[in-house]
Amino acid sequence: MNILIIGGGGVVGQKLARALVARGTLRGQSIDKITLADIVDPAPIADAPMPVATMACNIADPASVAQCVTADVDVIYLLAAIVSAHAEEDFDAGMNINMMGTLNVLERARALGTKPVMVFTSSIAVYGGEVPDPIVDHTFLNPQTSYGAQKAIGELLLNDYSRKGFVDGRGFRLPTISVRPGKPNRAASSFMSSILREPLNGQEAVCPVDDDFPHYYLSPRKCVENLIKGAELAAEDLGQNRCMMMPGRMWTIRQLIDAMTAVAGPEPAKLIKWEAQPDIQAIVKGWRFDLRPEKAIKLGLSADDSFEDNIRYYLEDDKPSA
Amino acid sequence: MNILIIGGGGVVGQKLARALVARGTLRGQSIDKITLADIVDPAPIADAPMPVATMACNIADPASVAQCVTADVDVIYLLAAIVSAHAEEDFDAGMNINMMGTLNVLERARALGTKPVMVFTSSIAVYGGEVPDPIVDHTFLNPQTSYGAQKAIGELLLNDYSRKGFVDGRGFRLPTISVRPGKPNRAASSFMSSILREPLNGQEAVCPVDDDFPHYYLSPRKCVENLIKGAELAAEDLGQNRCMMMPGRMWTIRQLIDAMTAVAGPEPAKLIKWEAQPDIQAIVKGWRFDLRPEKAIKLGLSADDSFEDNIRYYLEDDKPSA
Repeated sequence: MNILIIGGGGVVGQKLARALVARGTLRGQSIDKITLADIVDPAPIADAPMPVATMACNIADPASVAQCVTADVDVIYLLAAIVSAHAEEDFDAGMNINMMGTLNVLERARALGTKPVMVFTSSIAVYGGEVPDPIVDHTFLNPQTSYGAQKAIGELLLNDYSRKGFVDGRGFRLPTISVRPGKPNRAASSFMSSILREPLNGQEAVCPVDDDFPHYYLSPRKCVENLIKGAELAAEDLGQNRCMMMPGRMWTIRQLIDAMTAVAGPEPAKLIKWEAQPDIQAIVKGWRFDLRPEKAIKLGLSADDSFEDNIRYYLEDDKPSA
Repeated sequence: MNILIIGGGGVVGQKLARALVARGTLRGQSIDKITLADIVDPAPIADAPMPVATMACNIADPASVAQCVTADVDVIYLLAAIVSAHAEEDFDAGMNINMMGTLNVLERARALGTKPVMVFTSSIAVYGGEVPDPIVDHTFLNPQTSYGAQKAIGELLLNDYSRKGFVDGRGFRLPTISVRPGKPNRAASSFMSSILREPLNGQEAVCPVDDDFPHYYLSPRKCVENLIKGAELAAEDLGQNRCMMMPGRMWTIRQLIDAMTAVAGPEPAKLIKWEAQPDIQAIVKGWRFDLRPEKAIKLGLSADDSFEDNIRYYLEDDKPSA
């Protein structure tokens, strides 16, 4: 079992790699090799019992894709993306990576003829526009960001390349991942981790929306569990649409902060500064939060039980030691 | 008002051009020029009071697109496509024309910065898969052909390029056009015209499905009317989703034949041969027919009143003289 993680340098990619290393198996087979590819050579995984290679790969470039997607790859995780606010600012970057990059990986798999399993991370940003709540499995995708449109295109491609037998694809619309470790990124949702992560580390953070802002969340730990389950689903259980919501849960900003206070005491919440940011609001207020991931739940994927859990996972898995 | 029709050599493109010539105006302005572009230089339109140019254009080639999409174009009709059965057989042709061709036209408009009105013909082939009937405006697109997937991608692109202000797009999911004049083409739906057109011309035709097969139809004449209305819709009336079903109506093969008999007498129906064709059935049986085009009807687009009308339109507009 040879696994390639494109976007292997990112938060989810690194956690997924460590989980796979710890597990040692995927789809009932022992893992012989893991390769982490990203736009810059990803951090290696220490103390792995199997080879874990790292390499730079620009998925916008078919020649670069050909170097990392090779005939011996059994499972491809395609996690790499230009995130929401970034793709909104730099339209070409979003098109080149999110749309053409996905197409390049699919075309490479098609050219090889090896029909790899391909796990694609879409996003709940595919939802939006003039579509009534709640969002169910048969809800129209009417994204209101270029990121969401490019992810929705990726889903259509994944479905068609799967239907044609070029890959064995499965796509998951990720909730906003929180608490995300590391530094803020160029996702419009970046603050949804910052307002917890920074205060938990004794630092100030800015919340650009009101505290009654509702959104749909999943912890990184649970996301990785679902991505592993996603690769292990039987193709015949996926039906005619291989893309689905990954389960998450709706909470308001106030509920996130209350959960932080319940787990870590009253001090962190005092470090949150409230400053409205219209450009961020313009993006995130178009996102949907009343989501019903029935298909994924039926297939065994799951959400966090509480946001207190998400806070604990951050403290256990990610908080830098003092 | 300078109008470019890409796919101007096809049945709908030629009829649209003649209707625009007869009308003389679009969007409240007199038409100064019409250009018909297609993969082979289209037939010219005789006796037009304004210049009607024709040119060869391969939309899969950005340089060719740059030659036909110029800064003086106000309205682009993008009708060109690799049709359903053809795109299923030749995956690359479908991707290059239907997906990349649409992208090339949009990218050219973006580069020009002139924000043309762009009328895009999608197809009801975007529907299918594991989606419950009836099909409404907020129904998930789960196409089960590459043609349908490529058209659904075109819709997402048109919406996002419109949202970003690069074009003023409007997309219409065309029903199966019948009675389509001319020769059979490589659409899986080709027989849905052949079984009427050929008998009306005294020739035999093959029906590859049973006579209770239901499908969703529109006459070419009404399609052209709707495409003209589509260009004239106010952008603000389109909302956050610029793509919609074009109204049609559901009839069975038996109802089509009965309508032909009602208009043209009993002889034509005797020329239909019944021969099951599993490859055609595999495509068309995945198509949807229980469609509710509420948005388009609200905006003033309309279907035929009866299939007898469709038969009469063919006899009036298209039947070759003996």
